[in-house]
Amino acid sequence: MREDFMNLIGGPHTNPVELHDMLLKMNIVDIADVFEDLTKEKTIQVFRLLPKSIAADVFSYIVTEKQQVIVEALTDAEVGNIIGDLFADDAVDFIEEMPANVVTRILRNVDTETRNVINQLLQYPEDSAGTIMTTEYVCIREDCTVREAFDIIRMNGTDKETIYTCYVIRRDRMLLGTISVRTLLLATPQQRISDIMDPYFVSAHTTDDQENIAELFRKYDLLSLPITDTENRLVGIVTVDDIVSVIQEENTEDFEIMAGISPSEEPYLKTGVLKLVKNRILWLLFLMLSATVTSVIIAGFENTLSKMAILMAFIPMLMNTGGNAGSQSSTMIIRGIALGDIKTRDILKILWIELRVGILCGIGLGIVNFVRVYFMNGRNVLLSLAVTVTLLLTVIIAKCIGCTLPIIAKKFKIDPALMASPLISTILDATVLVVYLCIAQSLLPELR
Amino acid sequence: MREDFMNLIGGPHTNPVELHDMLLKMNIVDIADVFEDLTKEKTIQVFRLLPKSIAADVFSYIVTEKQQVIVEALTDAEVGNIIGDLFADDAVDFIEEMPANVVTRILRNVDTETRNVINQLLQYPEDSAGTIMTTEYVCIREDCTVREAFDIIRMNGTDKETIYTCYVIRRDRMLLGTISVRTLLLATPQQRISDIMDPYFVSAHTTDDQENIAELFRKYDLLSLPITDTENRLVGIVTVDDIVSVIQEENTEDFEIMAGISPSEEPYLKTGVLKLVKNRILWLLFLMLSATVTSVIIAGFENTLSKMAILMAFIPMLMNTGGNAGSQSSTMIIRGIALGDIKTRDILKILWIELRVGILCGIGLGIVNFVRVYFMNGRNVLLSLAVTVTLLLTVIIAKCIGCTLPIIAKKFKIDPALMASPLISTILDATVLVVYLCIAQSLLPELR
Repeated sequence: MREDFMNLIGGPHTNPVELHDMLLKMNIVDIADVFEDLTKEKTIQVFRLLPKSIAADVFSYIVTEKQQVIVEALTDAEVGNIIGDLFADDAVDFIEEMPANVVTRILRNVDTETRNVINQLLQYPEDSAGTIMTTEYVCIREDCTVREAFDIIRMNGTDKETIYTCYVIRRDRMLLGTISVRTLLLATPQQRISDIMDPYFVSAHTTDDQENIAELFRKYDLLSLPITDTENRLVGIVTVDDIVSVIQEENTEDFEIMAGISPSEEPYLKTGVLKLVKNRILWLLFLMLSATVTSVIIAGFENTLSKMAILMAFIPMLMNTGGNAGSQSSTMIIRGIALGDIKTRDILKILWIELRVGILCGIGLGIVNFVRVYFMNGRNVLLSLAVTVTLLLTVIIAKCIGCTLPIIAKKFKIDPALMASPLISTILDATVLVVYLCIAQSLLPELR
Repeated sequence: MREDFMNLIGGPHTNPVELHDMLLKMNIVDIADVFEDLTKEKTIQVFRLLPKSIAADVFSYIVTEKQQVIVEALTDAEVGNIIGDLFADDAVDFIEEMPANVVTRILRNVDTETRNVINQLLQYPEDSAGTIMTTEYVCIREDCTVREAFDIIRMNGTDKETIYTCYVIRRDRMLLGTISVRTLLLATPQQRISDIMDPYFVSAHTTDDQENIAELFRKYDLLSLPITDTENRLVGIVTVDDIVSVIQEENTEDFEIMAGISPSEEPYLKTGVLKLVKNRILWLLFLMLSATVTSVIIAGFENTLSKMAILMAFIPMLMNTGGNAGSQSSTMIIRGIALGDIKTRDILKILWIELRVGILCGIGLGIVNFVRVYFMNGRNVLLSLAVTVTLLLTVIIAKCIGCTLPIIAKKFKIDPALMASPLISTILDATVLVVYLCIAQSLLPELR
């Protein structure tokens, strides 16, 4: 479909009627995708061909740069109509990305009600429920009947982001319960809403973090979640389609932090080189300077190492294995905390698990390592033993540090994801070095 | 609420009426949570107190071990009822976790229809759309009217996993379109379904991977997705609540693979120590043996290093920085591929970006490093220069290897997540060593 479309629009004599017909047959997300590859001129041409009924929907899925191109080409009245037709949360998402002059023009051209809603949503703290909620939902007063409820849905429904759950409120907008269209369809027209609503609903506050909101959706299998202000009055709802994006965003953030990158919300290919450098260099610098500790330790043992340079040959392998063993533990714990499977009170239980895992992994690796070092390095039993004992201790220490640091971070309200591979490796490198050189000095006669 | 409940059930003389009343006021997910901390005896006691209307729903949220306890305590008829009341996909999730004798007992006690559905769902390949779909949905024939459609929904609706989207089929079950309850509510009772349905729906096949299904939900903001067989006949639907879990599962899998752990579906605290060892030791062993290369390189340069042991002091820092710089790039690319933002055809564009990022980061780190090495190591300009030039090259090489390996893996249909921190670090360690020692030999007069 996309190829057909691109062929049609790419040709020298584009037939608008044919284009229009093809647009009618496409999913709105696929139409929005098409804009990514169009020239500025074609972008505007195709956008104007869209039927009015789907223009705003398509617009909300178009990439930001092209949205700006379109808005700049439209008349003031057209801008007002498009923004007015968007769901309030989509409008806010879009406005947040636009330069100031475009924002001014947009706010000047929408009606007062839309402008007020947008201004209000723009004021919530970043990544809070307030910024992802929409103010378009169906609310029903508790004293309505089922028949009246259906009339309200029919009257308001087309504009509303979801009508599958309706919210039951008191005269003062205090949220009393929820009612699904499923329940309404199965009730008799005369029943009173207050008798059939579900008063045991889950809700959240406007200032709650979006990560917690996502957790509620996951835990309770929700399709939408009512959001209330500090006085428990209903002010908006969050819908599950936005939550899928929030979950992916939060996961991406964890992946980035765990790799020592400052998280950024832009997709990789849309981020400038300087921004990429900025997001990465601080951690690299910090970790490079932390590694100074290992330099100092090695410099301190310079004498020992000159006497027996072969000792150095095993340092990278020991450090690597320590880093890998530690990252395995820290990753599992960080992920467990993020998913709510692991609580800080589990710390001793986890330490006990990791201690045993460390001993078993360490013994397994140790045996293989002993054989290898023994046969590859002149059958020196004491050298092989020094390396193997260090390896065993390294794995055990790595597992214990790797599992406790994220939990301690969580306890002190630091993001556990920071305690991932890069930091763990750097801490372990210094530890492993000291352990190795001390064991070597006490075991090997060559060093005395 | 949970605390109140635990106090009530923990007391010596539990009043069943009071308990029952409290259960009625709780969300089903919260009720299921309570079971986690109950003894075997209390588990069964509380489960029998649940109103019949919510027992199956609560059951589907209870942790696996407690589900087994309950099923073993119930009578055959009760088991049949509970499983029959579950949504088919939840029943299959549960059955897959049970030991063979429990499975046999379950399948013996459910009615024939349920048994057939369960057996069919159990046959789909692991992680395919077939295993997460449910066979409970509302389908409407194309020639119905809106009024008839509502009658069908009312008759079938309560049992169905979602009634918010209905599926329009031909006599031979071929899927023709979808229609939302929203559209039905806004239509007149006499309109024909075929005139108002949406024929441009998104669908998937039973054998499609659940990761691709999740991607469709994310891209098209779906609430549910129809699943068809090879002849395009409708056989089930996947609902968004299951997709939220799939996304988290897929992300967890990536986190684990990227840390060198064989992915496992059990939560950390529910996995045995031996299983944890098994999931981790193979990668540790492989990486430890790969690190042998660095030992061989160092052993080869033993002479050089004995002449100037201070050279050794910078090896961990160089390797660490290389590993970190490489992991940053590989993580961003792996994540970009997983989210569909990066395609294999972008490889040259990405290499060009990373080359520039590498040069800029390398220069930044290099300047700081030069100053540090110069002043901390007897103002030896040539030594500082050798370390700094290696550092610059290390960062550039790391960025380039880090960004290309995941894309190449993708091209050869290997999971890009394998090309993460542990493997990248091991490859880089050997490269960095050779570069460092060659540069040192050609720059430093002490080594000639």
